[in-house]
Amino acid sequence: MSSAISPAAWVAAHLPASRSPRDAAEAYAPANIALCKYWGKREESFKLPLTGSLSISMGALGTRMRIAPAAADSLRINGADLSPRDKAFQRLFAFLDLLRPAGQAFCVDSTNTLPMAAGLASSASAFAAAVLAVEKLYGWVLDGPTRSRLARLGSGSACRSVYEGFVEWHAGIEPDGGDSFAEPVAPAWPELRVGVLTVSAAPKAVGSSEGMKRTADTSRLYRAWPEQVARDLPKIRRAVLEHDFDTLGATAEQNALAMHATMIAAWPPVLYWQPETVAALHQVHALRAGGISVYATLDAGPNVKLLHPAGDTPALLETFPAMRVIDPSAAL
Amino acid sequence: MSSAISPAAWVAAHLPASRSPRDAAEAYAPANIALCKYWGKREESFKLPLTGSLSISMGALGTRMRIAPAAADSLRINGADLSPRDKAFQRLFAFLDLLRPAGQAFCVDSTNTLPMAAGLASSASAFAAAVLAVEKLYGWVLDGPTRSRLARLGSGSACRSVYEGFVEWHAGIEPDGGDSFAEPVAPAWPELRVGVLTVSAAPKAVGSSEGMKRTADTSRLYRAWPEQVARDLPKIRRAVLEHDFDTLGATAEQNALAMHATMIAAWPPVLYWQPETVAALHQVHALRAGGISVYATLDAGPNVKLLHPAGDTPALLETFPAMRVIDPSAAL
Repeated sequence: MSSAISPAAWVAAHLPASRSPRDAAEAYAPANIALCKYWGKREESFKLPLTGSLSISMGALGTRMRIAPAAADSLRINGADLSPRDKAFQRLFAFLDLLRPAGQAFCVDSTNTLPMAAGLASSASAFAAAVLAVEKLYGWVLDGPTRSRLARLGSGSACRSVYEGFVEWHAGIEPDGGDSFAEPVAPAWPELRVGVLTVSAAPKAVGSSEGMKRTADTSRLYRAWPEQVARDLPKIRRAVLEHDFDTLGATAEQNALAMHATMIAAWPPVLYWQPETVAALHQVHALRAGGISVYATLDAGPNVKLLHPAGDTPALLETFPAMRVIDPSAAL
Repeated sequence: MSSAISPAAWVAAHLPASRSPRDAAEAYAPANIALCKYWGKREESFKLPLTGSLSISMGALGTRMRIAPAAADSLRINGADLSPRDKAFQRLFAFLDLLRPAGQAFCVDSTNTLPMAAGLASSASAFAAAVLAVEKLYGWVLDGPTRSRLARLGSGSACRSVYEGFVEWHAGIEPDGGDSFAEPVAPAWPELRVGVLTVSAAPKAVGSSEGMKRTADTSRLYRAWPEQVARDLPKIRRAVLEHDFDTLGATAEQNALAMHATMIAAWPPVLYWQPETVAALHQVHALRAGGISVYATLDAGPNVKLLHPAGDTPALLETFPAMRVIDPSAAL
């Protein structure tokens, strides 16, 4: 489906006109992990999803970004300057072009508080932080849905990273994404923990967007994915509101495995799993059989995240000594 | 769906009346590997499948079974006597009860020419060999479809093991399975090889029938499985007839991965894969990227079978030194 208008025209029509920058502005946005996954677009240019999704923001793990007007564009990530030929450089400034007037250059200094080696995606938090920083730079006062719609234009899942806690992204049906934005569902539960098992921090052989597209184009099983989400999303939302950890965990695990199943059935197969991924899944199932409440979720990559109550962290660390423990309710 | 009549009544109505046994009879049936998988039943008592399937018989690898009238039932497999309390014992004689008159006992001596440690299923070849041996014992002369329908009552995929070469099992629609039987498609190609990578020969934590049922009951993605088969089965049949190895291999691999994908999306997950399974799949994909025509297929278990032309066997053995090579065109 293609839209009548472009993202640039949409932004021009929906943002305050003021573009007088302060000296500099800085903002923070958390990473997020989807419990009900975003997997597949209904429209590419506005990054509109086929289905809704629901995530938990990663508290103090995310991206802090400082933006200042400058004579020429520059981007520093974690203290290292990127070349203008770097894809990450081009992608960020192409996005910022939507928000700034022609001729305005930026010096961007971005710091990820999430360990790069953890294999957690930083693009969601980076684009969300960029929106929040530009908002401050120009002195705008945007509401949550507007921030979310803007961040989505940078990276789909970034639309969930403009909030803390549990966040739902409404798929929407409008061609320009006016109704495709995220909203908070509930604050993070203080006792919920996410353990990260890093199988590989190497760049993926198949990027998420390419994996999504190949799956949508070639996987017959993908046709059942919207049904999967239609069942899982309300279950997870209710579990969040009712504080029902086991329903949340079991539904999130099945949703993540179903997402990977749609990829495994693509051609050529999109097999993000590594041997250690499968080993970890079997260990999780064995721990659960032994009475420990732990559930796995996986994004489009080989790493495994373990949803569990804080009280079970010590027991899990015995099986997974290298597990990094994240408290989504922790403030930066 | 339940049938109006029982399998026993169906057999009584469709077999010759003669039940005067010779002294003994012996028969052989090959194992088979599905290229388009049988995954899910539409009816349990007659073992009727939801979809059609297509296999290649394993030539000289299978089951040789000798049956002789005796004072009491006994079963020897590969030289070892089984206890009447053994499940395999009970399953075989419950099946033979369909074919013999009340009061008739059998001494059964079964030998698998397929290495037990290879993790290849022997139930298909065993039930097919049982049908062929009983046919000889009673001096019946049955046609292929009748043999196939009978073998199906022992184990679904056994209905394909009453033939050599490429074999198609028609799903059928009749409630008593009258139209659910296998037929030969073409002789085995002399140059086709199947390499078996044995990841684990241990009994599976979840049996095939249970895995099938759990998948059908809980996996949303399974709803797209009939569509997958509707696409793959005619493609594989055509590839067999046209001698198109790459289409056969690619379609068989996608079909097998899609079958596993339906299981991975079940709850609790039916995860037959082991770390070595995923390692082997990545190696297969790397070999293919390097120009070697090799495709993977997997049954409901962790072992990987490598479809390849005989000429590539030496190159594959460099990557997989423990691979056992099967020539489906080899006679016993």
